[in-house]
Amino acid sequence: MAVLVVVDGMGDRPLEELGGQTPLEAADTPALDRLAKRGVTGVVDVVRPGVPPGSDTAHLALFGYDPYEDYTGRGAFEALGAGLDVEQGDVAFRGNFATVREGVVEDRRAGRHVPEGDDLAALLDGVTPEGFPEVEAKVRHTTQHRCAVVLKGAEFSRQVGDVDPHKQGERVKEAVPLDGSEAARFTADVVNAVEEEFHSILSGSELNEERESRGDLPANHLLLRGAGVVPEVPSVEERFGVEGKFVAPVALYRGVAVAAGMEPVPLGGDVVSMGDVEQVEAEAEAANEAAETDFLFVHVKGTDNASHDGRPEDKVEVVEAVDDLVTELWEVHDGPVAVTADHTSPCAEMSHSGDPVPLLIHGPGVRPDVVEEFGERSCASGGLNRIRGRDVVFELMNLEGRVPLHGE
Amino acid sequence: MAVLVVVDGMGDRPLEELGGQTPLEAADTPALDRLAKRGVTGVVDVVRPGVPPGSDTAHLALFGYDPYEDYTGRGAFEALGAGLDVEQGDVAFRGNFATVREGVVEDRRAGRHVPEGDDLAALLDGVTPEGFPEVEAKVRHTTQHRCAVVLKGAEFSRQVGDVDPHKQGERVKEAVPLDGSEAARFTADVVNAVEEEFHSILSGSELNEERESRGDLPANHLLLRGAGVVPEVPSVEERFGVEGKFVAPVALYRGVAVAAGMEPVPLGGDVVSMGDVEQVEAEAEAANEAAETDFLFVHVKGTDNASHDGRPEDKVEVVEAVDDLVTELWEVHDGPVAVTADHTSPCAEMSHSGDPVPLLIHGPGVRPDVVEEFGERSCASGGLNRIRGRDVVFELMNLEGRVPLHGE
Repeated sequence: MAVLVVVDGMGDRPLEELGGQTPLEAADTPALDRLAKRGVTGVVDVVRPGVPPGSDTAHLALFGYDPYEDYTGRGAFEALGAGLDVEQGDVAFRGNFATVREGVVEDRRAGRHVPEGDDLAALLDGVTPEGFPEVEAKVRHTTQHRCAVVLKGAEFSRQVGDVDPHKQGERVKEAVPLDGSEAARFTADVVNAVEEEFHSILSGSELNEERESRGDLPANHLLLRGAGVVPEVPSVEERFGVEGKFVAPVALYRGVAVAAGMEPVPLGGDVVSMGDVEQVEAEAEAANEAAETDFLFVHVKGTDNASHDGRPEDKVEVVEAVDDLVTELWEVHDGPVAVTADHTSPCAEMSHSGDPVPLLIHGPGVRPDVVEEFGERSCASGGLNRIRGRDVVFELMNLEGRVPLHGE
Repeated sequence: MAVLVVVDGMGDRPLEELGGQTPLEAADTPALDRLAKRGVTGVVDVVRPGVPPGSDTAHLALFGYDPYEDYTGRGAFEALGAGLDVEQGDVAFRGNFATVREGVVEDRRAGRHVPEGDDLAALLDGVTPEGFPEVEAKVRHTTQHRCAVVLKGAEFSRQVGDVDPHKQGERVKEAVPLDGSEAARFTADVVNAVEEEFHSILSGSELNEERESRGDLPANHLLLRGAGVVPEVPSVEERFGVEGKFVAPVALYRGVAVAAGMEPVPLGGDVVSMGDVEQVEAEAEAANEAAETDFLFVHVKGTDNASHDGRPEDKVEVVEAVDDLVTELWEVHDGPVAVTADHTSPCAEMSHSGDPVPLLIHGPGVRPDVVEEFGERSCASGGLNRIRGRDVVFELMNLEGRVPLHGE
């Protein structure tokens, strides 16, 4: 088995409060350091040098695809990750339950707390908008106020603007085509009809009457954004002849993995609601049970959460939990493993940056280098030098002899 | 403010007369070494490994563009740098005042000394060639025998051959189209008509009568070469949201900076005629006065002059002047700074070569590496590893959070 562990936003910059170290450098990581020492290390430009990767493009790259040519928008990954089926021709969106009055967005998240999200989504699921009898909308509630939506039944385009104005107090936007194609025009028309239908269903629902009677904001609109279609890419099986599985609690990353042809490993408990460290522990357990898989992708989210909130100490803790995960994985696994990040998220900036991320690869056949610790700066002297995100899975699969010869 | 200092042709190879060091290694550069020590370093393939960059493609790359895809010929940069306006549709050329008798080039530079260049150019400026009433030629004298020429008023192509035969004693060439397009055919016809008109005006001018009566060769022809059009690239403002300015005495580099949407910082005195070291001193003064700019590009030419003449000791001196420039800049500036070269120019070869160039980046947020000196060989062990020319400005802008996310 080959394992790819992606620690979200793990890369950072030196921080004064950590004595001039990065969270990864400051963390106590005996297992990662041992792998770095016995393995080979390097740094990775996940999309390209200096360019901050989005979460979607970063994972597309780490699974071996071109983050520019193969990127087809976020919506499809969110929908796939939510368990919806998205096929060629379909278009998918992220959606927010929102409070809209007389066309104006009063709250983009309907107060964030939408416990009846599943039931509200069920009211919308399967809707056919007025005037488009061939179209069907599939709707799935994910977390809090969030949904995924797929439009099926026609040849849609992803070149359609957001309905979500991204600001409170502004009017709901009309979906507009973003290029001159017939498909974009058609998609915009369908989206507008769907939005109207959704609003009418939600406004009249008893669930919203109950919300209002409790004093909650009505979730009377579903604001769509981030149109995406599934990328036409070869699956990891088609490319490397491997069965791929993933351990990933968050929908987006699950979705990119599904687009790459991987299957989910069941996660015990309500992992999405767990604390960051507890979540890594649940993932470690699941990962160990999938030890027979050819290729396993493990995604850890907590490091990025800590980064976006500017909590370096918590980031250190999540990194240490990853170290434990790697230790446990080691008890059941002895094949190649790669540990890296999808992007740098400096705690001081609280956002993604374009700095490279550290990478270690350990396993039979690697050529160990002089690096003895796993860190942003130490890995910059590593034997893998500086590579691109899309190269990582090829490096890993190469150790298993899984990369087809190019030429003869 | 972010600063990019490009020291022209600074890269070199070890030289026996410098005790086996390169000029950069041999130079006393306390400021550059301090920046290298506290910052991060690497080496850069400005266009691609082993390929000697031209001055134009190198700077195009260092401003973040693709030196292959975005390169549209040298002429437009020369013309922009000379202060001419070059718009989409126009075609621009470099021109030499030359001495031509009965169609044969007697001297490609009319003796190099053309003090009446401004007045001669004024005679040609605004000419409309016979048979092309819609076309206007704009002509600007630059230095010595050199001019820039822009043809306006039609949709021109840059696919047109040089009129300049590049050799004394050969016939002036007829401009020929370099591809099968109608625009190239048309451009060649216009160039031939313009050349005829220029020759007739210059041949009959009193200024040339005076030159001949003094015993100077007549500047009776303007030999055009290096057809170029403006590249269709986003400006640094469009790409990074920064106001860009430049300190650059030489037309070509000014032109590439203008094409990238930057504005000139006024330079005191006749910088073009100054000695190499004195020129750097004048630039330091101008750079310090522009310290409020978002993004400042500083171009130093003297190192390349010394390289092309095979004068390593003089190259050392110019590098030391750059060290002083950096020291002075440091007194008014504390943001990110990148110091690099546009290409290697080995003094032993007296021409551009395809060796990588050293790079240092210093500023808040960098991850310092183990390198303690700024040099071709020391930087090859740096934390930036080996990147491409077009990555440099992305690395620099990333430190200021100016690079847009790719993806979501």
